[in-house]
Amino acid sequence: MSLKFKNAKRIEGLDSNVWIEFTKLAADPSVVNLGQGLPDISPPVYVKEELSKIAAIDSLNQYTRGFGHPSLVKALSCLYEKFYQNQINPNKEILVTVGAYGSLFNAIQGLIDEGDEVIVIVPFYDCYEPMVRMAGAIPVFIPLRSKLVDGKKWSSSDWTLDPQELASKFNSKTKAIILNTPHNPLGKVYTKEELQVIADLCIKYDTLCISDEVYEWLVYTGNKHFKIATFPGMWERTITIGSAGKTFSVTGWKLGWSIGPKHLIKHLQTVQQNTIYTCATPLQEALAQALWIDIKRMDDPECYFNSLPKELEVKRNRMVHLLESVGLKPIVPDGGYFIIADVSLLDTDLSDMKNSNEPYDYKFVKWMTKNKKLSAIPVSAFCNAETKLQFEKFVRFCFIKKDSTLDAAEEIIKAWSRLKF
Amino acid sequence: MSLKFKNAKRIEGLDSNVWIEFTKLAADPSVVNLGQGLPDISPPVYVKEELSKIAAIDSLNQYTRGFGHPSLVKALSCLYEKFYQNQINPNKEILVTVGAYGSLFNAIQGLIDEGDEVIVIVPFYDCYEPMVRMAGAIPVFIPLRSKLVDGKKWSSSDWTLDPQELASKFNSKTKAIILNTPHNPLGKVYTKEELQVIADLCIKYDTLCISDEVYEWLVYTGNKHFKIATFPGMWERTITIGSAGKTFSVTGWKLGWSIGPKHLIKHLQTVQQNTIYTCATPLQEALAQALWIDIKRMDDPECYFNSLPKELEVKRNRMVHLLESVGLKPIVPDGGYFIIADVSLLDTDLSDMKNSNEPYDYKFVKWMTKNKKLSAIPVSAFCNAETKLQFEKFVRFCFIKKDSTLDAAEEIIKAWSRLKF
Ligand SMILES: Cc1ncc(COP(=O)(O)O)c(C=O)c1O
Ligand SMILES: Cc1ncc(COP(=O)(O)O)c(C=O)c1O
Repeated sequence: MSLKFKNAKRIEGLDSNVWIEFTKLAADPSVVNLGQGLPDISPPVYVKEELSKIAAIDSLNQYTRGFGHPSLVKALSCLYEKFYQNQINPNKEILVTVGAYGSLFNAIQGLIDEGDEVIVIVPFYDCYEPMVRMAGAIPVFIPLRSKLVDGKKWSSSDWTLDPQELASKFNSKTKAIILNTPHNPLGKVYTKEELQVIADLCIKYDTLCISDEVYEWLVYTGNKHFKIATFPGMWERTITIGSAGKTFSVTGWKLGWSIGPKHLIKHLQTVQQNTIYTCATPLQEALAQALWIDIKRMDDPECYFNSLPKELEVKRNRMVHLLESVGLKPIVPDGGYFIIADVSLLDTDLSDMKNSNEPYDYKFVKWMTKNKKLSAIPVSAFCNAETKLQFEKFVRFCFIKKDSTLDAAEEIIKAWSRLKF
Repeated sequence: MSLKFKNAKRIEGLDSNVWIEFTKLAADPSVVNLGQGLPDISPPVYVKEELSKIAAIDSLNQYTRGFGHPSLVKALSCLYEKFYQNQINPNKEILVTVGAYGSLFNAIQGLIDEGDEVIVIVPFYDCYEPMVRMAGAIPVFIPLRSKLVDGKKWSSSDWTLDPQELASKFNSKTKAIILNTPHNPLGKVYTKEELQVIADLCIKYDTLCISDEVYEWLVYTGNKHFKIATFPGMWERTITIGSAGKTFSVTGWKLGWSIGPKHLIKHLQTVQQNTIYTCATPLQEALAQALWIDIKRMDDPECYFNSLPKELEVKRNRMVHLLESVGLKPIVPDGGYFIIADVSLLDTDLSDMKNSNEPYDYKFVKWMTKNKKLSAIPVSAFCNAETKLQFEKFVRFCFIKKDSTLDAAEEIIKAWSRLKF
């Protein structure tokens, strides 16, 4: 075949993707799917209703402003100015994108050059590494490491960056660090002190910070989400990323946003106008209307930003008990809607699994999906090649699921443990 | 300011955009907007209704398959296999993207390397040039040239490529040619013979063809749309691009698709999974349902693929007469929903326009929008720097507009000509 039909160099080796592989596996309707971060609870009624209403309005089915539908950027600026010291200019400091994914892509393509170094904390939301590579840049990895825990519960807050090790990753070629809090897949919510360490290094080395905060509302009792962009000296160097899919449990809407200073956002805008030009208008208008409903009742327990974490905390606790009850040691997440557990304790016989050169967790999840009809996501999918071994005993379960789904998972896990123990 | 805050090199100089500039101008509600290709006619009722219904279904608000929602790729394969000799594999030969724009981007990023040459026909849909440049490739331009016309009407079919000139643009570094038929802004529908010349050169020089066919249904009496991918030897080297926005007059949905052989589509898929991952589910499902309605009645005049061009042909004829009646010489389009005319015949005094180094048509449109409350798009926006002069006397009007909008435009143009002549 002609060489001309080959892929462009920039995407060489970037074609495997955990979602595509494991979503296909979980597509069997008899499988209980705790894999992909895909809510099966109902999204808020008003969110769906807004879209239904708006679909009927002719003009809202046509192109809108490329950098964000006017009513949406206004709603976002109003929402977030409660968290920043300054007002946020809706046209110059906000960009609406195709999901948080699109924001990550725009930020990396707009700001990162070939040869730049980008610090990525392991485990990481899986697209960070290929996105950095597609820009021709060099990902520099640093793992979260767990303190020893004996006796007490193992928590996501036991996983921390070593400040010295982190400092050693910064140098004059460091263009950016990608931060994710609350963290997927660990559920870690970075403390103020931990963020200050990162901020100090960003300032010292004049480094950008891409802060992926898609789970910003989902923090559990005793924890608080902090925005690194609000730390002194950080606004000017930070792109903060959010997601409608995560905010309103409508992952299929694929709307996200980047917030940051005009001098950075304008480069993300340039990428947008040369990649997709604009996002879907009816979804943007529906999101704006839904946001207004909750912006007006932010202190009310009914506000979705408050009610969803309450609802999820119950589910988290249930998952913790379930996993513990069968002898697993889950890492209790402080935020987000995932829980990871060391499954090597189950001592499953995977000897007849093909692809024996795959990491343990890949084989385990495939085995479990096939034999137990329960799906999850292997945590080593969130690791670079060198750190996969460190995390391959862990599997991630998603708990933004109806009680009936969690009941079904519970039944499977309990029956299985009766067999084993 | 820190050098680190500068844009990445790949987007250097790619920040101006005609839509952003002229959409802002036309936002004044007192302006009659014949600028951006934005229908103000109602989209089909069933298209809007499908979206309203689907918004209420929980699961259709969540993530779907990244390369295209299963029911949508199935509908697309069923629709297009009527036009190709072979069946089209819905999962491997189709990719659903964020508009045709997203398909163009994925094709260029997935297949074009730094230093490659890409042939671009002038005038061109404006994003082709910056997209090629963002990939680090070199656009090689060739203009459509008009035969002399005297006496008879000037038609888009009078604008052709010189076969010798075209052949001279191909060489061993030519990676691709970007074709657009029916053509924006000229309305040219390439004939079978014209496409054969291009196909022969693609095969001779082993070149890819990116065929932008977003206006495929919109061809007027006496013309026929041909797909270059169906020419012998072309399927294997062609990516054919379509758009839901143009097909169903819902530009705000931003869904498009690429169709081509598996060995090319897979590289576009790799780009997709590292840029946005997946498109909006409710829009994809609604589009699939709407397509099924029209796939089942393709020979029926009620089918939107047949009824919309009929409706638009009347509007086209009206625009031709209107522009002629005030002494302009429009180029009668054979397809699409734009008409261009030489406005230098109006001999407008633009001496007090600022930015006197702008092309004539930029100044003219700004003047017309401000003083006549009528907006359009300057054709030199569809040209590279070197060919702008060749087209700067032309302005593009969009005619996918309600009769009342065209009435308002007619009133403005007629009043203006009474003043002038
Ligand atoms: C940490 C993180 N960032 C980004 C995304 C992508 O979000 P979106 O669906 O809005 O593109 C996800 C989705 O799971 C995520 O977990
Ligand atoms: C020739 C051409 N290609 C592509 C597009 C972009 O289409 P979409 O809105 O589906 O991205 C347009 C829109 O005007 C167009 O005219």
